[in-house]
Amino acid sequence: MIKVGIIGATGYTGAELVRLLSGHKEAQMVGLTSRTYKGEPFWKVYPHLRRYTSLECEELHLAGLIDRVDVIFTALPHGHAMEVAVEVSRRGKVLIDLGADFRLRDARVYEEWYRVEHTAPDLLGQAVYGLPELNRNEIKNAWLIANPGCYPTAAQLALAPLLARDLVEPDSVIIDAKSGVSGAGRKTSLTTHYAETNENFRAYNVGIHRHTPEIEQELGRIAGRDMRVSFTPHLVPMTRGILATVYVKLKKFKDGDELQAIFEDYYQGESFIRVLPAGMLPQTKAVAGSNYCDLGVVADPRTGRAVVLAAIDNLVKGASGQAIQNMNIIFGIKETEGLEHPPVYP
Amino acid sequence: MIKVGIIGATGYTGAELVRLLSGHKEAQMVGLTSRTYKGEPFWKVYPHLRRYTSLECEELHLAGLIDRVDVIFTALPHGHAMEVAVEVSRRGKVLIDLGADFRLRDARVYEEWYRVEHTAPDLLGQAVYGLPELNRNEIKNAWLIANPGCYPTAAQLALAPLLARDLVEPDSVIIDAKSGVSGAGRKTSLTTHYAETNENFRAYNVGIHRHTPEIEQELGRIAGRDMRVSFTPHLVPMTRGILATVYVKLKKFKDGDELQAIFEDYYQGESFIRVLPAGMLPQTKAVAGSNYCDLGVVADPRTGRAVVLAAIDNLVKGASGQAIQNMNIIFGIKETEGLEHPPVYP
Amino acid sequence: MIKVGIIGATGYTGAELVRLLSGHKEAQMVGLTSRTYKGEPFWKVYPHLRRYTSLECEELHLAGLIDRVDVIFTALPHGHAMEVAVEVSRRGKVLIDLGADFRLRDARVYEEWYRVEHTAPDLLGQAVYGLPELNRNEIKNAWLIANPGCYPTAAQLALAPLLARDLVEPDSVIIDAKSGVSGAGRKTSLTTHYAETNENFRAYNVGIHRHTPEIEQELGRIAGRDMRVSFTPHLVPMTRGILATVYVKLKKFKDGDELQAIFEDYYQGESFIRVLPAGMLPQTKAVAGSNYCDLGVVADPRTGRAVVLAAIDNLVKGASGQAIQNMNIIFGIKETEGLEHPPVYP
Amino acid sequence: MIKVGIIGATGYTGAELVRLLSGHKEAQMVGLTSRTYKGEPFWKVYPHLRRYTSLECEELHLAGLIDRVDVIFTALPHGHAMEVAVEVSRRGKVLIDLGADFRLRDARVYEEWYRVEHTAPDLLGQAVYGLPELNRNEIKNAWLIANPGCYPTAAQLALAPLLARDLVEPDSVIIDAKSGVSGAGRKTSLTTHYAETNENFRAYNVGIHRHTPEIEQELGRIAGRDMRVSFTPHLVPMTRGILATVYVKLKKFKDGDELQAIFEDYYQGESFIRVLPAGMLPQTKAVAGSNYCDLGVVADPRTGRAVVLAAIDNLVKGASGQAIQNMNIIFGIKETEGLEHPPVYP
Repeated sequence: MIKVGIIGATGYTGAELVRLLSGHKEAQMVGLTSRTYKGEPFWKVYPHLRRYTSLECEELHLAGLIDRVDVIFTALPHGHAMEVAVEVSRRGKVLIDLGADFRLRDARVYEEWYRVEHTAPDLLGQAVYGLPELNRNEIKNAWLIANPGCYPTAAQLALAPLLARDLVEPDSVIIDAKSGVSGAGRKTSLTTHYAETNENFRAYNVGIHRHTPEIEQELGRIAGRDMRVSFTPHLVPMTRGILATVYVKLKKFKDGDELQAIFEDYYQGESFIRVLPAGMLPQTKAVAGSNYCDLGVVADPRTGRAVVLAAIDNLVKGASGQAIQNMNIIFGIKETEGLEHPPVYP
Repeated sequence: MIKVGIIGATGYTGAELVRLLSGHKEAQMVGLTSRTYKGEPFWKVYPHLRRYTSLECEELHLAGLIDRVDVIFTALPHGHAMEVAVEVSRRGKVLIDLGADFRLRDARVYEEWYRVEHTAPDLLGQAVYGLPELNRNEIKNAWLIANPGCYPTAAQLALAPLLARDLVEPDSVIIDAKSGVSGAGRKTSLTTHYAETNENFRAYNVGIHRHTPEIEQELGRIAGRDMRVSFTPHLVPMTRGILATVYVKLKKFKDGDELQAIFEDYYQGESFIRVLPAGMLPQTKAVAGSNYCDLGVVADPRTGRAVVLAAIDNLVKGASGQAIQNMNIIFGIKETEGLEHPPVYP
Repeated sequence: MIKVGIIGATGYTGAELVRLLSGHKEAQMVGLTSRTYKGEPFWKVYPHLRRYTSLECEELHLAGLIDRVDVIFTALPHGHAMEVAVEVSRRGKVLIDLGADFRLRDARVYEEWYRVEHTAPDLLGQAVYGLPELNRNEIKNAWLIANPGCYPTAAQLALAPLLARDLVEPDSVIIDAKSGVSGAGRKTSLTTHYAETNENFRAYNVGIHRHTPEIEQELGRIAGRDMRVSFTPHLVPMTRGILATVYVKLKKFKDGDELQAIFEDYYQGESFIRVLPAGMLPQTKAVAGSNYCDLGVVADPRTGRAVVLAAIDNLVKGASGQAIQNMNIIFGIKETEGLEHPPVYP
Repeated sequence: MIKVGIIGATGYTGAELVRLLSGHKEAQMVGLTSRTYKGEPFWKVYPHLRRYTSLECEELHLAGLIDRVDVIFTALPHGHAMEVAVEVSRRGKVLIDLGADFRLRDARVYEEWYRVEHTAPDLLGQAVYGLPELNRNEIKNAWLIANPGCYPTAAQLALAPLLARDLVEPDSVIIDAKSGVSGAGRKTSLTTHYAETNENFRAYNVGIHRHTPEIEQELGRIAGRDMRVSFTPHLVPMTRGILATVYVKLKKFKDGDELQAIFEDYYQGESFIRVLPAGMLPQTKAVAGSNYCDLGVVADPRTGRAVVLAAIDNLVKGASGQAIQNMNIIFGIKETEGLEHPPVYP
C-alpha cells in the first residue's frame, strides 16, 4: 500500500485527489492538511465524500507528515511547494506538485511570470514534467514531479502528434482555450461569483496568462526548437472542463484522413487518449469526471490549416487524475489504477 | 456472471445503466436495444462510454433477447413493458422495469392516470415495488421489479421514518419537489430546450403529476392507512438531481434531536442513505452520479411541523442505480456492487 | 425632475436602481455612493451601463448628499439605514430603504431576528411598508419607505387575495420559495461561488430565515389576525428570479374557476400584476428584468388545498423596481414610469 | 407611424422583434404570422410579452400582409424569404430579411453552401448588406436589406478597423467564435436539449459553417481584396451572447495604445459600438438584451499579433436589434429609436 499525504486537501484539486484515491486499490491516504479546516472531518468540508474517508483535516507539520508517507501531493497555490520539495528531497520520498513551482526549467522565467522568488532552483533540474503520454520514461524514475497545468495539458496533447513529425509552421500556432470555473479554484472572488459568470462568456489574461511559458517550453521540447504561440484563455459558464481549439498552419497540407491516421498512430495504446473518429468532435461533458483527453482533428483545405480540438476535465486529466497517473507510473503499478471509472454524462 | 439485456438503452436511464454496469464485477451486458440507433456502436451514441462497451445497438427481438440473458432492464416510456413482462414471465427470467407499468397495484388507477390500457393486470400481483430500504425482503424473491419513480423515491425515503412511527398528521403531508431536466428524458421538446429552461424556474403538472398515486400508494403502505398528499414538481435549470422538501404536521411535536435520532435509527446500516448531522442540509450536487440519498430533518417549533429534505440523483438512486441495487439483491450479491464510486463534486 | 441619491450603488440592487433610473423621464441621479469603488466612474464597475450614467462613485457624506437630492435610496446591508433615516428625517427629504431596517414594526422583533440594535425605533411608526398593490394609499403620503424583501413580496402577492377574503385556514400556510443567486448580493462567499452553486439545488435557513417575521407581520395585517407560516427558501442555479409555491388549506373548497375569478378581481387594474389564465403557470424567466409579478392559482380538489405560484425578478419587483414604483407614487407621477420595458426572454 | 409585419414571429428572432418594437415610438406592429401558432394570441406563445401586444398570430397571406404594412421583417429559416422578396418588390414596400437568402451576392455561392436553389437571383443586386456601422449610406436608400448573420456581425465589427487601414496579413485571420444556444433557434433538437448542452462546451461545423462565405465576402469588401479566414463556431452553455476572439498577424506591429486609438477613431460617434478602454475586456453579459457591440483589442508583442474581442447579443445586434436599426435608417428616424434601453446585468 502506497501511503499518501495531501497538502492543501480542501481546495478543488485536493478534494479531487481524495475522491479518486478513495477508490484506489494500492494507495491509502494517511494525512490531509488544511489551514482553513484543521480539526474538521474532511467529509464535513466536502459532504459528497462522506463514507469515503474518515480522516480529519490536520495542520501541516511538514517533516512529520513526510515521514508518515511514501508520496506527498501538494495542491497549493504557486510559491508554496518549494519548501516542501526541499524537505521531501532530504527525507527521500516522492513529491507530486500540482502547482507551478517546478514546471519551468529556468528559475528566472518562473520569477518573471509568477512574481515570486524561486527558493529551490537547484531542484529544478531534478523535476520531471509529468505528462505521461509524452514523458513516461522519465517519470518512472522521478522523485519530483511537476504536474502539468490544465491548459498546457490540453494544448500539448493536441499539438504533440503534429509537432513531433515537424508538420507545423512554427510561428503559426494559436491556442484558443476555454475553461470551466473550477479552474479558478475554490477561493472566492468576483470572477467566480455565480451571478457574474453565469450566462456570461469572456476572455481573460489575453496574451499574458502564466501558462504561456509552460506551453512554449514543452512544445519547444517536442518540436526541438523554440516555440512562440498565441494563447488565449476564456471562462465558460460551467464548472468542469477545458476545450482547447488549436490552429496550425501545416508546412505541407494533409487531408483529413492523413491527419486522422497521424493522431491515431501517435496515441496508439494510450489508455487515457481517445482520438475520435472523423466526423465526431470532442465535447467537455464526454470526459467529465474522468482522466480522458478526447481529441479531434479537422483539415481545412481552404486555409491550409489544421484545427485540433482537445477536451479534458480540468480537475482530473488537467490536475488530480494526471497526478495519480504519475504516482502509478512512479510506483510501478497499473497506470490506470484508481482512474478507470467512466465519465458521467449527461 | 449475470447476463444483462437492456431494452431502450439509448435513453438517459438506459445509458446510465450502461455506465454503471460497465464497472459491475458480476454482471455483463450482452444486449442493448435501441429503435433509433440500431446497428450503431453504443459509444457513438454516447461517446463518454467509448471503451466501456463494444456492444452495438440492436433491434429488439424479444424472445431471443430474453433467452440470452438472466435479467432484462426495461428503460422505456410507460406502456411498453407490459408485453415484455409477459414474455419474461413465460421464459422464467427476471425483469426490472424502470417505467411505471407495474408500480400501481390497481390496474384501474394505472389506466386512470396514464391513459393506457393495462394489458398484463394478472402480473401486477407478482410485481414487487423495488425500493430496497423499505422493501428488501420481498425484493429478494421477486422476478418482476417495479423500479420506483424518481420523485416517489425521494418522497418515501424522506417520509418513511416518521410514517412508520405514526408521528404524522396524515392529511398534512406536502411534498414540494424539484428536479433537474434529465428527468424529462432525452426526447426533445420545448420544455427541455436549453433556452427555455436555462435561467428559468417553474412548477409543472401541479396537483396532477402521475407520480402522485404511486407516492400515495406506497406512503399508505408504510403508514398503514390511506394517504392523500399535495405533490408539486418543479423544473430546475440543472441536469441531474432531485431535492424534495417535505412538510408534515407532527401529531406530537418532536425537537431536532429527537427527529435526528429517529432518522438515524431508521436508516441504521443502510449503505445508500446518509442522514446528515444536525445543521447540515442535503444538496443535489453532493449525491451527483451516485446512488446515495442524503437526508436532513428540521424541527420547526414555531409551527409544529417537521421539514424533511431528501436529495438524490434522479438518474441513479431515482432510476438506474436503484435498478442495479435491486438486481444485486435478487441475485444475492453484494448490494453495493457497481454502485460504490463516490459522487462527483463540484 | 426628481433628484436621486443612491447609497450603496455598487451592490446588485444599487446597480439595478441605476439601470432603471437611467431610463426614467422624471428622475435624475445626482449621487452614487460606494465605499469600495469611490472615485471610479460607475460604468467601470458595471460596464453594461456605460453611456447610461457618467457619474463617479463617491464617498458618502451623508448630510451633503441629502441636501442635494429629493429622495435617497439606501441599498445597504441591514443595520446601516437607521442613521441615514435620522438624517433624512431631520432634513425633510424622502428615504426609500431597500434593506430590512424599517420593515418590522417592533424593534424587539427586529433585534431578535437580525441581531443588531435598532437605533431609530422612534421612526418605525413613521415607516410605511412599500408594497404598492396592498398599501398604495399610505405610500402616497410617506417620507420613509420600508421597501419589502424579495421573498415577502412574492409571498404576500400570492396570498393576499385569499387572506383578504378570509378563505384560508390560518395555520395551514406553507411558503416554499426558490431564489436565484443574485438575491445573495454581490459579496463573495462560498455560497455564491459558481462551482458550488451551479448544477446544485438546496434549501437554506430552513425555519429560521429573517424574512419570516416580515412575512408573518404583513400577512397578519391582511388577514386581520396573527399568522404563523412555514417558510423555506431554496437556492436555484440561476441568477435572477424567485418562484414562490404557496400551499393553503381552504376553509371551504373553491374550484379553479372560483379561485381564478378571486385573483383576477383582486388585482383588477394593477399594472404590475399579471394573473395568468387557467392552465398557464408562472415562470421566472417570463418576468426577468421587469417589475411584473406573474401569478397562477390551482385548486386541488383531492386535498382541499389551493396552490398559488408567484414569479418575480428578485432584483426588480423584489427590490429596485418596487423601490422606484414607490418613488413614483410618493412623487405623484405615473406609477409605471421607468418600469415599462418588457421582460427579456429567452 | 411605420406599419410593420413580421413573418415567422414566433421564433426567437421574431419574438425579439416584437419585444423591441413594442417600445418603438414610431413603429407599430400590425401583423404577426406563425404557421405553428396561428389563431393564438402572441402573448400566449411568449407570456413575457403579455400586455405588450394584443395581436394574434395569423396565417401568412403574403400579398394581403404586404399591402397592410410599410415594412416586412422575415424571421425565417433560409430559403423562405426569396418569394417574399419578389412580392415585396412588386408591391413597392421594404423588406428586411433576417435570414441568409440575400446575404451572398453570388447565387452560386449561396447554392453551394446552403444547398437550396436561389429563386430570385435578379434581386441579389438590389439587396444591401445591413451592417449599419460599415454600410450606412447604402442602407438609407435600400428597399431590400440582407440583415447580417450573428457571427459575421461580430467578426466584421472586430476586424473592420484593422482591415480598413490595411494593417493585417490577409491570410492570417482566425475567428474563434462562441455562441449561446438561442442562436440555434427555437426548433427542438438534440443539440439544444438542455441536458446535452448544459455543463458542456464544444465546437461544431469546424471549417464548414455557412457563415464562412458571408464573413469572407464582407471582409473582402472592407479589405479590398479576397479574404480567406479560419472560422470556428462553438456552443456555450448559456442562452444569449456571442464572443468572437479574432487573431490577426499585423503587417507592421502596433502597440496597445496605437491599436486602441485606431479602434476608437474608427468607431467615433457610433451609438452601438463601445470600444472598451485598455485593460477591460468585453463580456457577453455586459451587452445582454441590448444592441451594443463591445470591443476590446490587445496587442501581443511576443507574437506580432493583435487579438480583438467582440461581444454582442446574438438575438439583438446579431439579429433583431440590427434589423430595427436598419429600419430606422431606411425610414429616416433616429437610428437608436426602440433600442435605447440598457443591457440587463447580472
